[in-house]
Amino acid sequence: LGSGSLCRASWLANEWSASKSELRHASKRYTTASTAPPLLNLHSTDSSPAVKSILIVNKLRTKPVIDAIESFLTHLRTHHPRVRVFHEDRKDIPQDVEVWRPGEGAEKIDLVITLGGDGTILHASSLFRVGAVPPVLSFSMGTLGFLLPFHVDDFAKALESVFQGKATVLYRMRLSCTFFDKEGRKMGNDGEDWQVMNEVALHRGSSPHLNTIDAFVDGQHLTEAVSDGLIVSTPTGSTAYSLSAGGPIVHPSLSALVLTPICPRSLSFRPLVFPASSSITLRIGERSRASAGVSMDGQVSHVLSPGESVTVRASLHPIPCINRSSISEPEDPEVQGEGAGPGKEDDWVRDINNLLQYNATFRSKALLRHSRT
Amino acid sequence: LGSGSLCRASWLANEWSASKSELRHASKRYTTASTAPPLLNLHSTDSSPAVKSILIVNKLRTKPVIDAIESFLTHLRTHHPRVRVFHEDRKDIPQDVEVWRPGEGAEKIDLVITLGGDGTILHASSLFRVGAVPPVLSFSMGTLGFLLPFHVDDFAKALESVFQGKATVLYRMRLSCTFFDKEGRKMGNDGEDWQVMNEVALHRGSSPHLNTIDAFVDGQHLTEAVSDGLIVSTPTGSTAYSLSAGGPIVHPSLSALVLTPICPRSLSFRPLVFPASSSITLRIGERSRASAGVSMDGQVSHVLSPGESVTVRASLHPIPCINRSSISEPEDPEVQGEGAGPGKEDDWVRDINNLLQYNATFRSKALLRHSRT
Amino acid sequence: LGSGSLCRASWLANEWSASKSELRHASKRYTTASTAPPLLNLHSTDSSPAVKSILIVNKLRTKPVIDAIESFLTHLRTHHPRVRVFHEDRKDIPQDVEVWRPGEGAEKIDLVITLGGDGTILHASSLFRVGAVPPVLSFSMGTLGFLLPFHVDDFAKALESVFQGKATVLYRMRLSCTFFDKEGRKMGNDGEDWQVMNEVALHRGSSPHLNTIDAFVDGQHLTEAVSDGLIVSTPTGSTAYSLSAGGPIVHPSLSALVLTPICPRSLSFRPLVFPASSSITLRIGERSRASAGVSMDGQVSHVLSPGESVTVRASLHPIPCINRSSISEPEDPEVQGEGAGPGKEDDWVRDINNLLQYNATFRSKALLRHSRT
Amino acid sequence: LGSGSLCRASWLANEWSASKSELRHASKRYTTASTAPPLLNLHSTDSSPAVKSILIVNKLRTKPVIDAIESFLTHLRTHHPRVRVFHEDRKDIPQDVEVWRPGEGAEKIDLVITLGGDGTILHASSLFRVGAVPPVLSFSMGTLGFLLPFHVDDFAKALESVFQGKATVLYRMRLSCTFFDKEGRKMGNDGEDWQVMNEVALHRGSSPHLNTIDAFVDGQHLTEAVSDGLIVSTPTGSTAYSLSAGGPIVHPSLSALVLTPICPRSLSFRPLVFPASSSITLRIGERSRASAGVSMDGQVSHVLSPGESVTVRASLHPIPCINRSSISEPEDPEVQGEGAGPGKEDDWVRDINNLLQYNATFRSKALLRHSRT
Ligand SMILES: NC(=O)C1=CN([C@@H]2O[C@H](COP(=O)(O)OP(=O)(O)OC[C@H]3O[C@@H](n4cnc5c(N)ncnc54)[C@H](O)[C@@H]3O)[C@@H](O)[C@H]2O)C=CC1
Ligand SMILES: NC(=O)C1=CN([C@@H]2O[C@H](COP(=O)(O)OP(=O)(O)OC[C@H]3O[C@@H](n4cnc5c(N)ncnc54)[C@H](O)[C@@H]3O)[C@@H](O)[C@H]2O)C=CC1
Ligand SMILES: NC(=O)C1=CN([C@@H]2O[C@H](COP(=O)(O)OP(=O)(O)OC[C@H]3O[C@@H](n4cnc5c(N)ncnc54)[C@H](O)[C@@H]3O)[C@@H](O)[C@H]2O)C=CC1
Ligand SMILES: NC(=O)C1=CN([C@@H]2O[C@H](COP(=O)(O)OP(=O)(O)OC[C@H]3O[C@@H](n4cnc5c(N)ncnc54)[C@H](O)[C@@H]3O)[C@@H](O)[C@H]2O)C=CC1
Repeated sequence: LGSGSLCRASWLANEWSASKSELRHASKRYTTASTAPPLLNLHSTDSSPAVKSILIVNKLRTKPVIDAIESFLTHLRTHHPRVRVFHEDRKDIPQDVEVWRPGEGAEKIDLVITLGGDGTILHASSLFRVGAVPPVLSFSMGTLGFLLPFHVDDFAKALESVFQGKATVLYRMRLSCTFFDKEGRKMGNDGEDWQVMNEVALHRGSSPHLNTIDAFVDGQHLTEAVSDGLIVSTPTGSTAYSLSAGGPIVHPSLSALVLTPICPRSLSFRPLVFPASSSITLRIGERSRASAGVSMDGQVSHVLSPGESVTVRASLHPIPCINRSSISEPEDPEVQGEGAGPGKEDDWVRDINNLLQYNATFRSKALLRHSRT
Repeated sequence: LGSGSLCRASWLANEWSASKSELRHASKRYTTASTAPPLLNLHSTDSSPAVKSILIVNKLRTKPVIDAIESFLTHLRTHHPRVRVFHEDRKDIPQDVEVWRPGEGAEKIDLVITLGGDGTILHASSLFRVGAVPPVLSFSMGTLGFLLPFHVDDFAKALESVFQGKATVLYRMRLSCTFFDKEGRKMGNDGEDWQVMNEVALHRGSSPHLNTIDAFVDGQHLTEAVSDGLIVSTPTGSTAYSLSAGGPIVHPSLSALVLTPICPRSLSFRPLVFPASSSITLRIGERSRASAGVSMDGQVSHVLSPGESVTVRASLHPIPCINRSSISEPEDPEVQGEGAGPGKEDDWVRDINNLLQYNATFRSKALLRHSRT
Repeated sequence: LGSGSLCRASWLANEWSASKSELRHASKRYTTASTAPPLLNLHSTDSSPAVKSILIVNKLRTKPVIDAIESFLTHLRTHHPRVRVFHEDRKDIPQDVEVWRPGEGAEKIDLVITLGGDGTILHASSLFRVGAVPPVLSFSMGTLGFLLPFHVDDFAKALESVFQGKATVLYRMRLSCTFFDKEGRKMGNDGEDWQVMNEVALHRGSSPHLNTIDAFVDGQHLTEAVSDGLIVSTPTGSTAYSLSAGGPIVHPSLSALVLTPICPRSLSFRPLVFPASSSITLRIGERSRASAGVSMDGQVSHVLSPGESVTVRASLHPIPCINRSSISEPEDPEVQGEGAGPGKEDDWVRDINNLLQYNATFRSKALLRHSRT
Repeated sequence: LGSGSLCRASWLANEWSASKSELRHASKRYTTASTAPPLLNLHSTDSSPAVKSILIVNKLRTKPVIDAIESFLTHLRTHHPRVRVFHEDRKDIPQDVEVWRPGEGAEKIDLVITLGGDGTILHASSLFRVGAVPPVLSFSMGTLGFLLPFHVDDFAKALESVFQGKATVLYRMRLSCTFFDKEGRKMGNDGEDWQVMNEVALHRGSSPHLNTIDAFVDGQHLTEAVSDGLIVSTPTGSTAYSLSAGGPIVHPSLSALVLTPICPRSLSFRPLVFPASSSITLRIGERSRASAGVSMDGQVSHVLSPGESVTVRASLHPIPCINRSSISEPEDPEVQGEGAGPGKEDDWVRDINNLLQYNATFRSKALLRHSRT
């Protein structure tokens, strides 16, 4: 399975991640524009449905979110009574829903449903920060987000597309991070790497002083950064923090690592884009005046002291995000009108224009009369 | 063969380009840091040497260049007397060298040798602007260039590495460009696309007015650019014009297209990085006040009028550039000292630091005494 | 009179420029927010009106422009019959209007009225490229421009504000440019400098090669630029070409020079802002591969060859632009509603927001339902 | 006295700051390149020396610093026995030196001497954060800094220049900051503003969330910033944090305020330059998810919660920094060689080139032989 690429993939339960060797040798194909995105082939039969367990993820418990969850549950109870529904262990989890705990021995999940903003998907990814992630179906509660294909009002249509095997996915690359102490020994007891969807960001935080970070690529010393911090981002994350720090916008179907400095004391620190095969190590300089807080998709996870480091690589477990185009029916006149087949509609182009107001041209709109100014 | 990637490749005479289907399905592997770059496997036997014909390319005829060519010829006559040596058709071509003319029916070339600056390699690429390029061995005449691995004084060592099959190559991606008229008909009689190594740049040139260009990706309208122009660059070209225009630095082993605006009348036109599978079309707006000159690797080739367009894609014929590491012998103590095997030395990291003075940190050098100021 | 600053100024006919000594010693005051912009004090009496001659400037002769001119003339004939009205010498000048020719011996003009876009004001400024400019009252024909305070429909109100001495002006700094040949001798026969309102831009134009320009400030060598070109801009021009090239936005009431490179082959060429007292010289390097076309407010004026140079300074003749706030009456409820007195309304803040879409925040607008996408 | 400008000034003891009205009406003159910087006229007579009290400021107590202080004291004791020498109240202050305490009732200081890096000057400025600052003579301990004109080995020469009335100063603008609570009431008991030399920076610090800040200029709403923070910088500070955040480089003799965003979630947040007469207010948005730490020249001073704000203006008390050119004697052959009179040498041009490596051009240095790579 090509991480980060739109490719036709057969999705069998529990096979939504690549084996290590598969990934190494896997390809980012020279697909042409006409290549359809991968179908999420569920192979469900009457006796054995493909989606047997769903995890519902939400951060807020506002009225609209609660109502949406209720509707979901009603829909599932009615149309897919045998599907087990899970929720994180919180005081206020919905009735009739089983508690799900991440980590070793966690119940197997076939589909994740998120309700909320981009941060909710990041949170879902963090629940599977070790190992593979099931396909994710994301619903917005009314505000557009970059990673949010579906409006919650369309939930039934979207869900049925998945159950009917019509859903297609974009494998969004994740990064896998390993932390090392001064002596180069792996930090953390479980020995497992932590995966992120947007970025790993090192930042001086509230230290008044700049920190000094040595950056290495594939073991080679690249540069010494004296700055507020450094970001290693996925293409998905290129529209998040990296963008704010001046990084380029990278299409999420490309497999690449973006290194973007945060307020460097240098006139010549341009963002760098590396192939996904690269391994980037960031080590706090021995004489750095400040340590660096590490944010994983926005959550502070570690503080690295001088001599300590983090190594970042493409993860073996990209995150399969179900595309909006999945639920566009061929006869949909509006989509047709734009001449786009279901596989070709690229939410991303629309999103950078609508959400990021990419290249918003200077206005020459009809002048308002003075009296109306 | 993966374009733009460092991968082990078997290089047979005349097979230094990928077939269309090979390329489509070819892979950019998730190589690890330890993966060696591709050997340029010449399969030469006593009866059938792999390198039978060499094309020498130079732009200037300065004394050092002439001397270097003489030394080359002497070396070849002595050690490889059966190799045919070619040169472009110019008044002053060296003695004993055959004339080579590009295009259909051109003599087959097994190795290109360039003597000069980066522009000489671009020129060599342009001689093979249609179809495949033979492997290129590039010599600098004394100034470091970004694309110039070898100093001319090392020519014998470098050449013998190639003849002995020890050379490794970096397949640098090229772009293939097709021009269309207002009615969408392909312009140009030969029907063949023109390939570039750095970039295709559209620019208003000496027109006082900005031009308006509609950019499309995979057929989808991306944005309307009101600017001095637009650049579609390869990763190789990311350190050329695109860099000057504010683009990111992209490692040449990544397969990607970079779209960088030149002085856009917009606050929000950030450079974009697309997968190599993308096709980018730039069409001069019907009401653009200026037409756009098209520069292919710095050479003005066309002027596009309103309604006309160019479509840019990854070419099927990347350019195999012989690596400097090719001639580093394993026992070389200095290279060893840095712990780098021959395959790991990455000229690129060194080049962005030494040549581009990447992230040159602010100096805290010992203060010169006032009297010496 | 402070160039480029909002200060209370007494404007007597033909005194809308500062004497050399006045300007040298003139001040950019530490005005507080409550300081009102300068009134354009016309001192008109019944026997001697302050505005005796008006120059109408337009570039296009479209129907709306012709109609607007007619309305103007009718209004003037009716209310100010003794005012002489002039127009540039063109085939199609309006009836009853006298021809005006720039240069020595030109008829004295008390007020310039422009009808068109920003380019029309730049053209008006260029008519007074040598010496002082009369106050300028600019009307937009329906599209907002950066330098266009008034909608043409408000012409009567605006005009009467001026005649009644209620108009206030923003003195927009201009640059004065002197050209020198290789030997350092002043080029041009009239010995007079050429003034611009936006910028002087040096550009390689359609040369394929970069040019090399030595930049000096107050005689000191600042840097050698290898680039597409360099811009020396006024604060007014900071939202024009300089902005596109990456320059900062500078408030037009500041007196300063902005030096912005165009696509420099350097990672570390940051825009520079100098005090208005600085003199900046740009000299084409002796070994520059390309000459440089010089654009004065967008009009190509010279081509500088290696060794030739241009020296740019703050001009003694800023351009007095009549403010939109001039015609806001105190009782105007909408303006009041915003709590802005006539002197405080700053068109500029509104313009960078409305026209340049400054800091357009990412949208979180209500999500469109899928079916409407 | 013009803040931030190089102008001829008569400096009388205790008059190194402008009265409020002086400053309001003071001028930034259109000085020509030949205008000399202001002499620090000490008017000392035998009976009444101008420098009667010196404050020595250092942050570190390293051996070289201690030695330097000893040499200073010896020199002063020998040549200026009546001068009182002060030091901040610290355990380890030098012998024979009086303790100086900032604030109301502080002993009057005629000259500040700093020994250390740029941070030491910032610290000296902060000792006079309320009210005026005496002239500052800064010595570097061996590393060049941006604000450090003199090498410590030149101390005797530098000091005598000052005593002999030959020193010239650059008045570096400072910012004055006032803090307001949610109700718009001034925060802080002393009612006095806090002045900074580089910048006021608002930053989310270690909060994971972006903050929302409303920026106002002269009371007008400019923009809402969703970002890591905002910087309001002096021209002096334009080469400090603002530069790292992407701001332009502003010559310190210009009076201006620079507003630079830190990692804004926007593609279109360009740095802005305002006249020194502007007042900029930054108010944390009522619904901002994070509060903002306020750094004054790098020192965290406040945390602003939603609704709270800071107003920043040009201070009435610029900081008079003694120029390096002060001690260049006319007969100095090297300085002469460059054709620079004492008043024309501009340390700043040299500093942006030498220290910031401004526009460091790409190298075409002689190629190192491969074997030496
Ligand atoms: N100055 C900045 O721009 C900062 C950005 N962040 C970003 O916030 C992310 C965490 O997000 P939340 O937990 O929601 O925190 P949050 O609630 O503070 O929101 C961050 C914003 O980023 C947006 N966002 C998140 N991922 C995105 C993506 N891939 N592309 C475009 N927009 C995206 C969200 O919609 C939200 O508007 C981090 O991964 C980091 O990328 C975090 C700190 C500072
Ligand atoms: N403002 C700018 O930066 C401009 C840049 N160019 C570049 O010049 C190239 C043509 O080169 P020449 O024929 O030698 O023209 P040239 O002799 O004008 O030199 C252009 C410079 O670019 C360097 N260069 C070329 N390719 C490079 C690469 N891939 N990475 C780093 N540096 C590179 C060369 O070494 C040379 O210093 C074009 O492909 C374009 O990329 C062309 C016009 C303007
Ligand atoms: N890549 C770019 O951004 C380029 C910009 N220009 C600018 O165009 C100006 C000439 O203008 P036109 O004769 O109207 O040519 P034009 O008709 O080609 O229009 C240039 C655009 O710049 C706008 N503009 C002009 N002055 C402005 C200012 N001070 N602030 C904001 N926007 C401004 C105009 O409204 C128009 O949209 C030149 O002075 C130069 O600044 C010229 C060439 C290239
Ligand atoms: N990411 C960044 O660039 C950051 C920069 N700073 C800057 O550090 C300053 C505090 O300085 P220190 O106490 O010495 O802290 P520090 O010891 O952390 O050093 C900051 C660096 O900035 C340099 N510097 C200070 N003022 C400068 C100026 N006006 N122009 C050029 N370089 C300058 C110093 O020489 C030093 O190299 C703050 O005022 C702020 O401007 C503070 C935090 C982050």
